[in-house]
Amino acid sequence: MRKKSPTILARRLVEQSRFLKAEQIDLEFSNGERRTHERLRTTGFGAVIMVPMLDEDTVLLVREYATGIESYELGLPKGRLDRDETVAQGADRELKEEIGYGARELHILATLSLSPTYMSAMTHVVLARDLYPERLQGDEPEELEVVPWKLSELHTLLLEPEVSEGRSIAALFIAREFLAGRYRPSA
Amino acid sequence: MRKKSPTILARRLVEQSRFLKAEQIDLEFSNGERRTHERLRTTGFGAVIMVPMLDEDTVLLVREYATGIESYELGLPKGRLDRDETVAQGADRELKEEIGYGARELHILATLSLSPTYMSAMTHVVLARDLYPERLQGDEPEELEVVPWKLSELHTLLLEPEVSEGRSIAALFIAREFLAGRYRPSA
Repeated sequence: MRKKSPTILARRLVEQSRFLKAEQIDLEFSNGERRTHERLRTTGFGAVIMVPMLDEDTVLLVREYATGIESYELGLPKGRLDRDETVAQGADRELKEEIGYGARELHILATLSLSPTYMSAMTHVVLARDLYPERLQGDEPEELEVVPWKLSELHTLLLEPEVSEGRSIAALFIAREFLAGRYRPSA
Repeated sequence: MRKKSPTILARRLVEQSRFLKAEQIDLEFSNGERRTHERLRTTGFGAVIMVPMLDEDTVLLVREYATGIESYELGLPKGRLDRDETVAQGADRELKEEIGYGARELHILATLSLSPTYMSAMTHVVLARDLYPERLQGDEPEELEVVPWKLSELHTLLLEPEVSEGRSIAALFIAREFLAGRYRPSA
């Protein structure tokens, strides 16, 4: 059962910078309660996070410096889509830039929100299989270290101090459910 | 093996609003490459997301309107910590406000980043067990619908159109690994 969404009475742009727009939204809930909520809208064309499989159980992770938390992060390769790029094209390009592989088979498994209460941002989770070596030059300041991990050993990955990103952990478990045949996304 | 983090040459506050601070950080990587990165710092005292277990296999989810993505979201209860509140205290308070239960047993399973490249935000994942009915009045505009789900059936949850939040999906799988005895967080 899906609940009836509140009525949107008004929207106001309250702040705009190069990367973000902050909006105020006046809502009326189905019980008559009114609230003004704020949310951040990201600019750009969306994001992709890839689950690149070297074989049926080996996923390729990257170790990359993450400025937001000021430490190296071990997780799935990801990036932002360029203008006029499909999700599959963006995923394939980012893989070539970050791990030095293209993928002959790309499959969208899910679309994840980041912080659904406060942000509009969405990230497509793309399973990448049938990999072949091909490198594209990205804008990375240093070559990313590629770290193979076993999907059957995700519980040991959780112990790594450099693993923190919720989206990346979610995407790995979603891929594992998919590859085990327990989950098929609706078309 | 942990990589040596880049040297931070300078930090500048470039934007400040009620909710966020945007910073520029000048970095020098170990290979001598320099970059200026931008990140958002959230204000406040951090966030918690709870995995409330009614019994060994039943987790209590909430259906709540998410203004960021303009739709109802089905996921774990969560909230922001108040000043002078421990993680466990904040988790217990949010549970009483959102699902009408307190918890006699609270256990921090992990701390998740949101978007580690661009944001400083971190969320504690708290397993809540030995629940008892107790309601605190929160600031919710409508009573949240509580939806029990089986941890053993997480693959079916992924099919729900109202399930999108990466952090929530990650926290559920982490809790399942913990409860199955495959994962023990380091103290």
